[in-house]
Amino acid sequence: MTAKKKLSIVCFSGDYDKVIAAYTIATGAMATNREVTMFFTFWGLNVLKKQQGRSWLGKDVLSRAFNFLMGGRNTLPLSRLNFGGISPKLMQGMMKKNHVATLPELIEAASALGVRIYACEMAMHILGLRQEDLVDEVEDVVGVATFLNESEDAHIIFI
Amino acid sequence: MTAKKKLSIVCFSGDYDKVIAAYTIATGAMATNREVTMFFTFWGLNVLKKQQGRSWLGKDVLSRAFNFLMGGRNTLPLSRLNFGGISPKLMQGMMKKNHVATLPELIEAASALGVRIYACEMAMHILGLRQEDLVDEVEDVVGVATFLNESEDAHIIFI
Amino acid sequence: MTAKKKLSIVCFSGDYDKVIAAYTIATGAMATNREVTMFFTFWGLNVLKKQQGRSWLGKDVLSRAFNFLMGGRNTLPLSRLNFGGISPKLMQGMMKKNHVATLPELIEAASALGVRIYACEMAMHILGLRQEDLVDEVEDVVGVATFLNESEDAHIIFI
Repeated sequence: MTAKKKLSIVCFSGDYDKVIAAYTIATGAMATNREVTMFFTFWGLNVLKKQQGRSWLGKDVLSRAFNFLMGGRNTLPLSRLNFGGISPKLMQGMMKKNHVATLPELIEAASALGVRIYACEMAMHILGLRQEDLVDEVEDVVGVATFLNESEDAHIIFI
Repeated sequence: MTAKKKLSIVCFSGDYDKVIAAYTIATGAMATNREVTMFFTFWGLNVLKKQQGRSWLGKDVLSRAFNFLMGGRNTLPLSRLNFGGISPKLMQGMMKKNHVATLPELIEAASALGVRIYACEMAMHILGLRQEDLVDEVEDVVGVATFLNESEDAHIIFI
Repeated sequence: MTAKKKLSIVCFSGDYDKVIAAYTIATGAMATNREVTMFFTFWGLNVLKKQQGRSWLGKDVLSRAFNFLMGGRNTLPLSRLNFGGISPKLMQGMMKKNHVATLPELIEAASALGVRIYACEMAMHILGLRQEDLVDEVEDVVGVATFLNESEDAHIIFI
């Protein structure tokens, strides 16, 4: 009965500061000996797009427009005081200066530590994204029921 | 000791995309054999208002103004890129086109599946709302302590 | 085996309405016999700043600018319909009128009830804040791993 504690994070937000928080909690939870799964959905999918910057992914006009507006990992806004994207860059500067891991470093570290990364099937479908549009760290595209099944004994955090 | 797993969702947000996420998780959790309770508070109460569109519910000028500005289920904004309400309509279109359940369908499905719906007593009080202002799916208006008591063995998600 | 249930709240948001929700859940959880820990990070740190109103705390230009813009407990915005800060004041009026505890009352009550308050080390570091900049209710400044370790058996809510 020494099953590892489990933590599942639904990463719904695509805000730079919240994604940093999600990854910080994920890596911190790995460091404290938990099994961690991250389930990226909706805005959170921006973090995982291979093609960075604004792109016209998607299979019709609507999903293309959304994907373009959402941008990618390098254009994530802050949840507050975004100032047209200047603030995330300032914050990244502050983080580097203070030797705090930045987002690309956190993403790499999480995968290296064994955090499991899933992308939400339904959100991918709505946005017209395919798994090959996402970075290799994504282990699978799964439905919410599959995710919840695997998270049966996990604490679930929604970010 | 085969007690059903429980999931409780505090639905604080009234953003269209987040409410969709809340209901998707709720119905997904029912499908994976959990007992699910949703506790709607503050902005989330918009989802449950009987009278849709903007309305002047409330018992004084302040709560009437707030209720008017909050609108109802049909005027929920997106948490990002709302563009004055155009985006939620676009998204609804994208969801219909992709045969994904829309919000009214999700709400109906959740109640049909047995998801328990509570409204937060304190928020109702602040906003001057009464239970008869809310849809019939609301099982009860309860305080946060009652909700937490019932959620003693539940995982709690805040959306 | 009568260990007390535990609840941990990551208070990431500095929005007035969300902070009210966090404290309401925290005090409600104490009332229903749980051990409660609140971990304030990023925008949430505004709630804990000793010096209220806008201030130039921080050790360099960037962190000073951020601290100034973030303001303190008395300038927290609403997550929606903020209208340049008028709405939080209206809401505070509505809460007083309805005999609902306001934020300063909730903060005091929570500490009196024994809610444990932590500030996030990394966020303090990025923002150039020191423990003496925060109110006395803050028990300690800890890293996320410490917080997660102490929350091993706790349900975790992210707000």
